[in-house]
Amino acid sequence: MRRLSPTDVAFLLLERRHQPLHVGALSLFTPPAGSPPGFASKLAAELAESTSVAPPFDRRPLSRLGVFYWEDDPHFDLAHHFVHMALPKPGRIRELLAMVSRVHSAHLDRAYPLWRVYLIEGLEDGRIATYMKIHHSVVDGVSGIRMFMKSMSDDELHSAGMPPPWEIGSGHRPTPVLREAIRKVDRLRAAAISAPRVLRELQQTFRDARSQHPDLVTALRAPRSILNQKITASRRFAAQSYSTARMRAVGKTLGGTLNDVVMAMCAGALRRYLTDLGALPDKPLVAGVPVSLHRDREHAEPGNAVTFMLATLATDLADPVKRFEAIKGSMDYNKQRFQAMNQTELLAYALGMMTPGLLNMAGNWERMPINVVISHVPGPRTPMFWQGCQLNGLYPVSLVMDGIALNITLVSRADQVDFGLIACRRTLPSVQRLLDHLEEALVELEEACV
Amino acid sequence: MRRLSPTDVAFLLLERRHQPLHVGALSLFTPPAGSPPGFASKLAAELAESTSVAPPFDRRPLSRLGVFYWEDDPHFDLAHHFVHMALPKPGRIRELLAMVSRVHSAHLDRAYPLWRVYLIEGLEDGRIATYMKIHHSVVDGVSGIRMFMKSMSDDELHSAGMPPPWEIGSGHRPTPVLREAIRKVDRLRAAAISAPRVLRELQQTFRDARSQHPDLVTALRAPRSILNQKITASRRFAAQSYSTARMRAVGKTLGGTLNDVVMAMCAGALRRYLTDLGALPDKPLVAGVPVSLHRDREHAEPGNAVTFMLATLATDLADPVKRFEAIKGSMDYNKQRFQAMNQTELLAYALGMMTPGLLNMAGNWERMPINVVISHVPGPRTPMFWQGCQLNGLYPVSLVMDGIALNITLVSRADQVDFGLIACRRTLPSVQRLLDHLEEALVELEEACV
Repeated sequence: MRRLSPTDVAFLLLERRHQPLHVGALSLFTPPAGSPPGFASKLAAELAESTSVAPPFDRRPLSRLGVFYWEDDPHFDLAHHFVHMALPKPGRIRELLAMVSRVHSAHLDRAYPLWRVYLIEGLEDGRIATYMKIHHSVVDGVSGIRMFMKSMSDDELHSAGMPPPWEIGSGHRPTPVLREAIRKVDRLRAAAISAPRVLRELQQTFRDARSQHPDLVTALRAPRSILNQKITASRRFAAQSYSTARMRAVGKTLGGTLNDVVMAMCAGALRRYLTDLGALPDKPLVAGVPVSLHRDREHAEPGNAVTFMLATLATDLADPVKRFEAIKGSMDYNKQRFQAMNQTELLAYALGMMTPGLLNMAGNWERMPINVVISHVPGPRTPMFWQGCQLNGLYPVSLVMDGIALNITLVSRADQVDFGLIACRRTLPSVQRLLDHLEEALVELEEACV
Repeated sequence: MRRLSPTDVAFLLLERRHQPLHVGALSLFTPPAGSPPGFASKLAAELAESTSVAPPFDRRPLSRLGVFYWEDDPHFDLAHHFVHMALPKPGRIRELLAMVSRVHSAHLDRAYPLWRVYLIEGLEDGRIATYMKIHHSVVDGVSGIRMFMKSMSDDELHSAGMPPPWEIGSGHRPTPVLREAIRKVDRLRAAAISAPRVLRELQQTFRDARSQHPDLVTALRAPRSILNQKITASRRFAAQSYSTARMRAVGKTLGGTLNDVVMAMCAGALRRYLTDLGALPDKPLVAGVPVSLHRDREHAEPGNAVTFMLATLATDLADPVKRFEAIKGSMDYNKQRFQAMNQTELLAYALGMMTPGLLNMAGNWERMPINVVISHVPGPRTPMFWQGCQLNGLYPVSLVMDGIALNITLVSRADQVDFGLIACRRTLPSVQRLLDHLEEALVELEEACV
């Protein structure tokens, strides 16, 4: 039994009936060539026979006198965590997204380890899907996807003999230096968690830090928008893949990175979506881009050590190239600053940037410093296999909260970039339209490149 | 917009993360003879095109300054409420019960009208299923099942042309006398709801009433048992049908009603289940049997006006016939008393009997006056059809709460009695064993009758 870090506790304390704080991922796989029709059922039956479980999949939260601990589940029950499901006919992606939207809306039971893996059959094209959810108090979304990837291999045959993700777990320990830095942040966050009024003190700390390091924050101010309302308990998940080659070509021509193109596509899509609703703010939208405090992500312990960079989406600019350049300038400025920071500066920066969570906790969700979260997770660069099946898509299913009703998280792989959009179903109508708008935004950039 | 009755509000206020307070029903249907394979998909597509909705399916709760109102949902969205699902292979009842267990564990979103209807395909025998859930603040379980029955007919062809349940709704108003009686209870409950400490005052009222009417309660004391623990958020649903003819034959031989046999089967099954776990209390278990305050149930408004009768389950008696007689004696005594009460006495009785909810609210779930809830819903006496499909089973899916981790609710129909057992999955291990124990208890009674 060990005490949760205050950062991890925050995700238990911030959780509300209408605001579950787990993250997930939807993956699509092609079964091995020549698989019999019952492949998915057989795989489900095999996985259900698993008898071992590794950290962090074996532990559940325990609250004693207001303090949260992780304890091993004394009656680990795989049938609670591994679920076999099927799509109704006709088994299109549409039915799959509707199912994930519903399942992602439901809370995890805190009496059990906070995760579930669903194996989904019944796609009309014969593929199978997995949807995995895990509570943000256990890992952040990026670490969760990395843990899942540990059960995959670039070798088809080898992958078929690998254990399921819950038998592999994380298996990493943090390095002492990083652990110390994370602890510092955690201690300061702990104060905030124990009493929301400490928000003011934290802001003072932040102001002090800023006076010593004047360039710590940009002057960005997020305008009010329909993206920043109180949310309901229902989610809409939308997902689609876009060609990495096309996106890289645009980036090359316009002198930016793949991520600059990602941001520009999101900006173009949001501009179109909000314009159609008559709800585009005059001032440009501000995106919050999660950045890990673990510089050396590969060897970091799973858990939460995430802060935000702020970037303009330049949604006030009608010209796609000018918009691209404004976004790229904002991203470049942020990256340079972030790279140059030492641990102390990073700490002060993190304190300032974690205000979305604090504001949410204090109920001040109208004062959100960002309009939308856009998160880019670097994915595998080679074809990957899980249980002998080739990975065709890996779509993050992140979380939304009061004041941030839309989250766009994507995984970039060799041939395609897999976008996962999660939104409050009621606050943001027909958010699946953003999928078409993302494609339109890419075409618009391509046409500007000619 | 109209204010919720305090009784209905209680089910919103008593709801917890681990304790959702909706009720449901699982129904099994045989499609019309000669239906094509795509029957379920076609039916789902047709139902999804419904464009009208009747009270109470059109209203959602709205909280203003601590007062709850019902308001019409200004953006009623059937896609949120009507869901098409499929069972994974092999599509046994086992997979169906696992699915219902999971779906019943999830909260309804209060931003929408508090109900959902699921159409489930993929049963290996070609049948289809529906699972309907509705919040207890809208209707109690019996009224919910009655509302669903309004969309069924005893005429197969006629049923195929009937609208779905949400287009029919309730369509009833209470009679003035009953409404007044219910209001009285509601007013007193309102006080309790506004401050749990009022529990003590209510208990005093109850003691006063008892001193004037000494026979208002039995001397039953529920022993402590594993059935009466704090629950988790996960549910296990188990369901099975038993022959009405066999049960009636036992009742006739032993001089009791069908309901006496129901109670005796539950008693025998619980005795076996608890004995196997080494957890049978020395003193007999006490069942709480919900009784409607609407004497004229057929013409009552949907909503909550329910109290409890207490009955011994005589689980200390090893002999099945002696156990049967003790249970029957307890039930007869209760029924006579209940029938003889005037409205004032009924009111005092209801006040006393609603203590389970109050104790739950006050966190005193260890002092529950009952061990288990057993509820008998009279069902249709003729074969019934829904959308052209014959009804084969109608299994209530009720609710559990801290202190009452098991609820057994059943619908008696012409040829079979459909038992639905809902339990906390973690608190009560392998509760599906009770299905076999119910059959064994019936056989035990049959053998004693020979």
